[in-house]
Amino acid sequence: MTISGGSWPAPRAGSPSEKAERAQLETKSSARGLEPQERLDWLRLSRSEGVGPITFYALLRRFGSAAAALDALPRLSRPAAAMSRRDAERELAAIERLDGHLVCWGEPLYPSALAAVEDAPPVLTVIGRVELTLAPMVAVVGARNASANGRRFARDLAAELGESGIVVVSGLARGIDAAAHLGALDKGSVAIVAGGVDIVYPEENRALHEALARDGAILAEMPLGTEPQARHFPRRNRIISGIALGIVVVEAAAKSGSLITARYALEQGREVFAVPGSPLDPRSRGANDLLRNGATLTETAGDILIQLGPLLQGRPPPPAIAPAQPRSPLGPRAAMPASGAVVSEDAALDLIIEKLSPTPVAVDELVRQCQLSAAAVATLLLELELAGRVERHPGNLVSLR
Amino acid sequence: MTISGGSWPAPRAGSPSEKAERAQLETKSSARGLEPQERLDWLRLSRSEGVGPITFYALLRRFGSAAAALDALPRLSRPAAAMSRRDAERELAAIERLDGHLVCWGEPLYPSALAAVEDAPPVLTVIGRVELTLAPMVAVVGARNASANGRRFARDLAAELGESGIVVVSGLARGIDAAAHLGALDKGSVAIVAGGVDIVYPEENRALHEALARDGAILAEMPLGTEPQARHFPRRNRIISGIALGIVVVEAAAKSGSLITARYALEQGREVFAVPGSPLDPRSRGANDLLRNGATLTETAGDILIQLGPLLQGRPPPPAIAPAQPRSPLGPRAAMPASGAVVSEDAALDLIIEKLSPTPVAVDELVRQCQLSAAAVATLLLELELAGRVERHPGNLVSLR
Repeated sequence: MTISGGSWPAPRAGSPSEKAERAQLETKSSARGLEPQERLDWLRLSRSEGVGPITFYALLRRFGSAAAALDALPRLSRPAAAMSRRDAERELAAIERLDGHLVCWGEPLYPSALAAVEDAPPVLTVIGRVELTLAPMVAVVGARNASANGRRFARDLAAELGESGIVVVSGLARGIDAAAHLGALDKGSVAIVAGGVDIVYPEENRALHEALARDGAILAEMPLGTEPQARHFPRRNRIISGIALGIVVVEAAAKSGSLITARYALEQGREVFAVPGSPLDPRSRGANDLLRNGATLTETAGDILIQLGPLLQGRPPPPAIAPAQPRSPLGPRAAMPASGAVVSEDAALDLIIEKLSPTPVAVDELVRQCQLSAAAVATLLLELELAGRVERHPGNLVSLR
Repeated sequence: MTISGGSWPAPRAGSPSEKAERAQLETKSSARGLEPQERLDWLRLSRSEGVGPITFYALLRRFGSAAAALDALPRLSRPAAAMSRRDAERELAAIERLDGHLVCWGEPLYPSALAAVEDAPPVLTVIGRVELTLAPMVAVVGARNASANGRRFARDLAAELGESGIVVVSGLARGIDAAAHLGALDKGSVAIVAGGVDIVYPEENRALHEALARDGAILAEMPLGTEPQARHFPRRNRIISGIALGIVVVEAAAKSGSLITARYALEQGREVFAVPGSPLDPRSRGANDLLRNGATLTETAGDILIQLGPLLQGRPPPPAIAPAQPRSPLGPRAAMPASGAVVSEDAALDLIIEKLSPTPVAVDELVRQCQLSAAAVATLLLELELAGRVERHPGNLVSLR
């Protein structure tokens, strides 16, 4: 079985027959997840050079399945280097040796809140109690050089959230992150790491890493064995906010990583909570700034539970139940025709390149200017993107590199 | 000269002739203040037993001048005990010996922001640099048992406000109040005390009291020699908020006096600023609660100056200039007829008593039910109030005692 284009419902699709088709496919997918062969293809495509999440989903829509997209890669303007089957098999085997899971978007074990994010990771590696990622989650994040009081507060807050059935997620960094994991560990805590789930970082958190791998869960977008690098952290932060219903910033200096996570949270429509602190402590600056900009002032777990109340009701956390209909990570883009009309004519490609410039332009505007179908433009842009000639920007904008 | 009823403009008065009359009287009053004899009468009436600020202004409107009101007191249902002329002369002489001032509502030296408050004190006693009370003011208040950090913050904040031309007002209590006065002393600070301006309280603030009497100003509603009592403090707090453009709460426990001041400030339409603090410190509870309810988060003097910006522009602080047209402390009550129609007929009085009960009722509703004129009802209520039979409540409500 292949995941057909139809399993990537365009959000606008609303006719009775489309709804029925979508429901049917979701039931099929959520009942058992991907076949082993499909899982391998998803892994290969997601790990292929130049294929980020947005491109991944675009390829899947364009070619109908990961296998078909892998077949097509060499024919595209500038072939993306696909991950070899052998490397993918090695990665899967390594995950299995850790008793871990490779979870693909849309599968029953894929966290439902994260599934709704436009650039959700197509595949996640999880070790530990993977079922924890299906419970309602709240992220507790903050400064690495946190004060003793800040760490104590984070630990107690996480413990209280845990007692209320919330799984506490954080980044397994020093300071607030570590304190939050510790506080929630016996109720359930999930670490989202920037490198591979098997890489301990920082070294001082080794014991906590081992405890989370056993009693909690550790989750990563990057392959096993990846040493975390500076550029990985912002991408990791989007998962911390995206997987949670809300994030709590405990202590954070101005311009700190926690504020990046808070910005992602706002973009993703998540609740942002901030713990006030004295203006005399620079570690309060970030959280106080968030409060000034409308974050919910947080002194106790009750402040969070009250605010999230409506979101916590009617959540289907038990592992056996499918995630609540996630919207497609493709967002409100034009639907690709199911037939996959072939439009890679040079003339059309030249026309699009002529209309593009280094200044980002809306895809809708491009469609209008080129007088091509939305589907044809989407396909051509995808090819140009894979060829490294087009760059995508937030808000469905594109520019020439 | 007597202050005629016309000098207490009803806020609704808007005809060209009324406006002209009001402007004429304000010019007369603000150019030189009250005559010595009038000042004595104001003092006597305001210090008469059972005559609070609201009643004071009602009497003034009803009888046209303090002297006429004093004459009428014995004829009222239950005569209020007027302050004797001799006692008033003694009080004035004592104030003079302290180089102090008795400032009456509407006089050039009466603080304009306070003048706009419904129950503004009819007379104020001020020692020190009385002209400081004409500058734009900000109140800085907080806990008596403040932390060292809180006191440091209050002192630095007050100094910064002082450097920006703001006079810092506070309550001369221990902790935050004392720190705020200290920080602003060399630029200008005003203490509003609950007892008489000559009473040092608490004893540990003796040096600060003396410094404020010399380099700043100390202001009180109560007569010289009054020892402050518990019931005086909330009334004092309404002056702290009423005299200022805004109040800053630095550290305040839940249910503390600073929160009472903040509530007055909201009722009076003042800006409320609060300094965030750690949830682990109970002294942060009050300020954090204010932030939760919409107070402006304050980390620096800049946060205050930005928010007050529009209020600070166009302020006429120099002592020679009259306060910007204060609205009558009578608020939006019905205007009393200038002729002062006599309506104290027993029938009307009985009718009103019949309609009243211990449950507060709106004066407007009473007017409708009694089918009397608003002016007549106001006069009758005033007599009943002076007789101790009627109690007034916020929102222009009255009840039977």
